[in-house]
Formats: sequence, C-alpha cells, structure tokens
Amino acid sequence: MEKTVQLYEGKAKKVFATNDENLCIVSYKDDATAFNGLKKGTIMGKGAINNRVTNHLMKLLEKNGIPTHFVEELSDRETVVKKVSIVPLEVIVRNIAAGSLAKRLGLSEGTKMSRTVLEFCYKDDALGDPMVNDYHILAMGFATEEELKLISDYSLKINKILSDYLKDVNIELIDFKLEFGKTSDGTIVLADEISPDTCRFWDSTTGEKLDKDRFRRDLGGVEDAYNEILKRLLGE
Amino acid sequence: MEKTVQLYEGKAKKVFATNDENLCIVSYKDDATAFNGLKKGTIMGKGAINNRVTNHLMKLLEKNGIPTHFVEELSDRETVVKKVSIVPLEVIVRNIAAGSLAKRLGLSEGTKMSRTVLEFCYKDDALGDPMVNDYHILAMGFATEEELKLISDYSLKINKILSDYLKDVNIELIDFKLEFGKTSDGTIVLADEISPDTCRFWDSTTGEKLDKDRFRRDLGGVEDAYNEILKRLLGE
Repeated sequence: MEKTVQLYEGKAKKVFATNDENLCIVSYKDDATAFNGLKKGTIMGKGAINNRVTNHLMKLLEKNGIPTHFVEELSDRETVVKKVSIVPLEVIVRNIAAGSLAKRLGLSEGTKMSRTVLEFCYKDDALGDPMVNDYHILAMGFATEEELKLISDYSLKINKILSDYLKDVNIELIDFKLEFGKTSDGTIVLADEISPDTCRFWDSTTGEKLDKDRFRRDLGGVEDAYNEILKRLLGE
Repeated sequence: MEKTVQLYEGKAKKVFATNDENLCIVSYKDDATAFNGLKKGTIMGKGAINNRVTNHLMKLLEKNGIPTHFVEELSDRETVVKKVSIVPLEVIVRNIAAGSLAKRLGLSEGTKMSRTVLEFCYKDDALGDPMVNDYHILAMGFATEEELKLISDYSLKINKILSDYLKDVNIELIDFKLEFGKTSDGTIVLADEISPDTCRFWDSTTGEKLDKDRFRRDLGGVEDAYNEILKRLLGE
C-alpha cells in the first residue's frame, strides 16, 4: 500500500490516495483546533492516540454489525480506510447535556437527557456547520430519506455499543460526533474518527473530563487525558 | 363578554381573561418589535389590520378542517378566542428561502425549496428562541410524539390552504410562523396570529415585500404594505 497524492488536509488529519482506487490512507496530526478553527494548538502525541483509539473502536463496532471505513492500521499514525464520499452531515449523539446543547436549551452541563438526542449539522466551515433538521436535509439533498433513516439508526446503535463498552472502563459517554460516507458501490459506512477529539468522555466516578474540552476550555492536563483514554481502552 | 384581568402582555398583543373561564380576549397593539425585541417601533393601524387578517384566515382554515382558537371578532382590535395553554414551540413553515434560513444554509433569498421545510423553535426569549429538532422536543417534553405529529401535519395542511388562497390575490406565501395551543379538554388548536407580522408575503408579480420585513429592514412603506394585505384579503 503506497500513498500517492494528498486528497485533503483537514484540521486533524490528512487523507492520501493510494495505488488502490478504492482505498485511502489517513494520517493523523497533533494539531488541535476548536471553535471552528478560531483556537489553534498542538496536543503532543494526539495523532497517534486518536489513530489507535479510533481503530480500536471501529473494530469493536464492525464486530457488532456496524459497517465502517476501517481496513488496516499501518503505523502509529496511519490507517488504510475505504475511499468514501462523505455525507455532508455531522451527526451528534447526546446522552447528557454539555457544550452547545446545554447552552442552546439552558440546561446545566451534566443534565441527563430523558432520551438520546441526535443532532445533524451541515458540514460547511464557511457557514459555521449550522444545525439542520430532517426537512432541511431532504430539501437540500444532503441525504435521501433512506440514507437519513439508516444513519440515524446506526448512530443510535453505535451509541449503545460504545456507551456499554466504555462503562466497563469507568468512562461515561456524554456525547460524540459521527460522520458517514458512501463507498463506490453506494454502501453507507461509518467514517472519520472516534476519539477524545470527537467525543466527550467523563470519568464515571469523578466526572473528570478526559477529552478535547480540556484544550477548548484551558483546563490543563490535555496530554494526560488523551493518554488516560488510550490506557483505559487499549491497556497501555 | 367582559374582559377581567390581563393574563399576558406580549410584543404585539395583550390577552385578557373573561367571565367565561374557557375564553379569552386578545387585544392587538400597534407596537412592532424585531430581532427578539432589539428593534422597537410602531406601525400605525397594525393592530387592527393584524386582528382582522388573522380572523379572516382563521375562519378560512376552520372551514378547511383545521381547528383554531378563533371564536368571535369583537371589534377592530379585539377578538374572543378559546383559552389554551400554548405549546412552547414556534413552527416555521418555509416554501422559499428567506431570512434566517437563507443565512443558515447560504441560499440566496428567493430560492425555492425543493420541498416544504418545517422548523421548530423553542419559545424562550431569554434563550433567543433556539431552533430545536424532534429529538430535543421529545427529550425536553415540549410536546409528545402524537402532538408533534399532529402539529406537523396541521402545519403542512395550513401551508397548502393558505398558499392556494393567497395565490388568487397575487401573493406568494414565502414562509410563516405558527403557534399551537391545547384547550382545557386537551385538543390541539391553531392559536396566535397569521398576519404580515408572522408571514412573509411577496407580491407574486413584482416580488415586492408586503410584510414585517419592511420594518425589520427599514424598507419604508410599512403601513402601506399592511394596508395592501388587508385590501387584497378583505377587499377594503
């Protein structure tokens, strides 16, 4: 497997084409951004941790019936994934109010939602990734009705699998962001990453934040938190 | 029918209790506000126009199978309505992109949506009436699943009735806001008003705005626009 041209560079990852037209290589960076790129920094070792945590959780999800883009971990920072066209939606799954949901609805951070909340944001940096609802998604053609149903069902199922799994290592899954893609044959698969960059992980006992909120909110101990997640999930 | 105590004073209306516990009297004001109260002004004659236009359209909707709170017009500015507890949602129905939708999705104002878009906002001035989706509504208990389904169905049906009706007087119904309430026996009925304050009305031929956007955007001819709507709908 050889990297050829760089297809894309995002805030936290680069994606390369390969000699196989159906596969790409993702390379994780240590760069950290928040607030739609307004805050920038570096979290030492983050790229390697997010690569390994993501792959670990993608394999868990595959085993539990969720199709993902994961193919093979190449190195600490690089992974082979299926080439997909990204559905232009961020799916946010929320069990406990935090961040923008707490602000939007005037809830104290930490309030348990009476049922799981899904939110969809249209992936567009220039527009600030605006929240959209089913009607917007269908009217704008961001996804078809069938795709939206599938993505919603997968997201709720992923929430159940990850929440149960994380409870065993004393982590509460507060909320997380998912992205889905379509492979060349039209199959919808989970893409992107599942890491402390894209999830809120709180220690179940102490409530300590073990995720990117430490960076966003200048809480200190950012690298320690990422390392703690690696340790609890992969035993290292 | 006698007004007793004032129950509520909003930006554009006062609501009074009456000697019948199931009925209220709504009194329309000339006060105009925009941008969640940040912009304030007066539109001469607006209260009387909105009262009469609302009642005219509520009667049209009742005749077409939509239950409403309308009971009887008392005077130019005052109307008897059923007492309801308001469902804390604003339903926005959009046929053509304008205002916040155009901004949110980066669409030119005037872009026809490929299908009707419904949006829901949680009625809370302090939070700025935030947009919410079905999951938020159900998790927060703003409405039950059955109520939400009924409100959505009514809103789409109202859109069809009003759009068809307005076409005949050369008005394009761009978008509008609805509120629903529950009567003492739990029936969901259309409440609030349907007027140039709560709808975007464009002249079908010229595209001229005949609604509150003339006030919001300082376009001049505000009173003329309100009077033009009264004339086209009630022939006066």
